[in-house]
Amino acid sequence: MASDQTHLTLLLLFTLISPILSHSIIQQFTKPLLHFTSANTLYCDSWRFSVETNDAGSWSTIPEKCIDYVKDYMTGDRYTSDSEVVADDSLEYAKTVELTGKDAWVFDVDETLLSNLPYYADNGFGSQIYDEESFNNWVEMSEAPSLPASLRLYNELEEMGITVFLLTGRDEYQRNVTEKNLLQAGFSNWKKLFLRGTSDKGKAASVYKSEKRMELVDEGYVIHGCSGDQWSDLSGYAVATRSFKLPNPMYYIA
Amino acid sequence: MASDQTHLTLLLLFTLISPILSHSIIQQFTKPLLHFTSANTLYCDSWRFSVETNDAGSWSTIPEKCIDYVKDYMTGDRYTSDSEVVADDSLEYAKTVELTGKDAWVFDVDETLLSNLPYYADNGFGSQIYDEESFNNWVEMSEAPSLPASLRLYNELEEMGITVFLLTGRDEYQRNVTEKNLLQAGFSNWKKLFLRGTSDKGKAASVYKSEKRMELVDEGYVIHGCSGDQWSDLSGYAVATRSFKLPNPMYYIA
Repeated sequence: MASDQTHLTLLLLFTLISPILSHSIIQQFTKPLLHFTSANTLYCDSWRFSVETNDAGSWSTIPEKCIDYVKDYMTGDRYTSDSEVVADDSLEYAKTVELTGKDAWVFDVDETLLSNLPYYADNGFGSQIYDEESFNNWVEMSEAPSLPASLRLYNELEEMGITVFLLTGRDEYQRNVTEKNLLQAGFSNWKKLFLRGTSDKGKAASVYKSEKRMELVDEGYVIHGCSGDQWSDLSGYAVATRSFKLPNPMYYIA
Repeated sequence: MASDQTHLTLLLLFTLISPILSHSIIQQFTKPLLHFTSANTLYCDSWRFSVETNDAGSWSTIPEKCIDYVKDYMTGDRYTSDSEVVADDSLEYAKTVELTGKDAWVFDVDETLLSNLPYYADNGFGSQIYDEESFNNWVEMSEAPSLPASLRLYNELEEMGITVFLLTGRDEYQRNVTEKNLLQAGFSNWKKLFLRGTSDKGKAASVYKSEKRMELVDEGYVIHGCSGDQWSDLSGYAVATRSFKLPNPMYYIA
C-alpha cells in the first residue's frame, strides 16, 4: 500500500507539474520564435523593400523562394494595412491643397483602384511569367473588386471637389469592360478614363502616362496628386505635386 | 504488486507521452504565434512602407508606438539585410553600364556610407526632434562606422573604373572631420567631396544636391548611379540613370 501510495503520489505530482513544465517549455520555445525571422522571410522582406523603392529596377517574376511570402503578404493583413496607410497619407495631403478650380488627381486602375488579386491568386502570385491572353480574359469578366482604401480616398477626393482622372495601361478596346468593372466596384464620376490608343502602342508606361498627364496640364489642370502601384505611374514628366506609391510585390511594369 | 506494476506502467507511459504532448501543445501554440503580427507591428510595418516610398511626405519624428519597432529594425538583422540587397541591386546594374570614360556614381554620406546608428541608439532612434548641436558634436568625433554593404559597393565601383563623388548635406566647416571619418571607416579615393558652402545655406537638400549633380553633368560626367537614404538625395534634376534608395526609418530630410 505504501508503495502504491508513493506511486500514486508521484503520478499525481507529475500530472500536476506537467502543465507547468509544458508551459515553461512553451515559453522557452515561443520567446525566440516570436523574435525569429526565417532566412527566407528576412530575404523576401528585403526583396520587397528593393521592389517597392524601385531599387530592383526591371524584374519579370517574384523569386521562387518568396512565393509563400508574397501569398501571405497579399492575402493576410499586411497588404490591406499598407494600402490603408497610403490612402491616409494621400488624404492628409489632399486636405492641405489650396483649390484652384482646375484641380486634378490621377489614379491608375489595376492594383490601384481595382484589385486583380483573385486572378493572381489563381496564377502563382506573380511567380509565373505574365500571360497577356490569360490576363485579358480575366479583364473581360469585369469582376475585379475595389481596393477598399482607394475607394475611400477616391470618394473623399470627389467630395472635396477634386477632379478625378483615370489613367491605365489597358487598351482602348477594353474601355467597356473596364468602365463596367469600375462602376460595379463602386467608382463613379471620373472626368475621363485614358486607355492606350493605337498611337500609344509600344510606348513605355512612364512615357505614355507622362504624355497623358501633360495633356491635363495643357488644359490648365493642377495635378495635385497621383496614385499608382508602379513607379511608371508616377515618374517621368508632368508629375503630380505629390505621388503616392501603392504596394505591389506581384509584378513590375516599366 | 499488480497494482504497483500498473502504476509503474502508467507512470512510464505518462513519462513517455509527456514530451509528445508537450510537443503537440508547443506546435499548437507556436503555429499561430509564427503567423501572429501584433497590431503595432502591422501599423509600424505600414508606416515604414509609407516612409520608404516617400508616400508619407515630410515628417519630424517616428511614431511613439513604433520606437521599439524601429529599434528592432535598426539593431536586428533587417537593416543590414535591406542594405545588402540595395548594394546587390546597385552592383547588378553597375555591371551592365557601358563606360564612357567620364563615369560617375554619387554617394550621400550619412546613413549611406557612414552609419550614425551609435548616435541614434543613444537618442531614441528618431523619436526625438533633431538636435543640430548634439548631432554636430557626434560628427566632430569622426567615429561613425561604415555601412558594410555600401563599403563593398563603393570598392567594387572603384575597381570598375567608375569615378566616385560624395555629396553630403553636412557643412563645409565639417570637411576635415568628415574626411577623417570616411578614411577611418575604410573609404578612399573619392574624386570630390561636396559639402554645403555659404551659398548653399537654406536650400532644400533636393535643390542643393541637384545643383551639384548638374555641375558634374556640365563637366561631362554621365551619372550612372546615385545612392542615398533620402529621396532628396535622388530626386530633382540631373538625376542619375538609376537611383538607389537605402533604408532609413529614423529621420526625414526634405
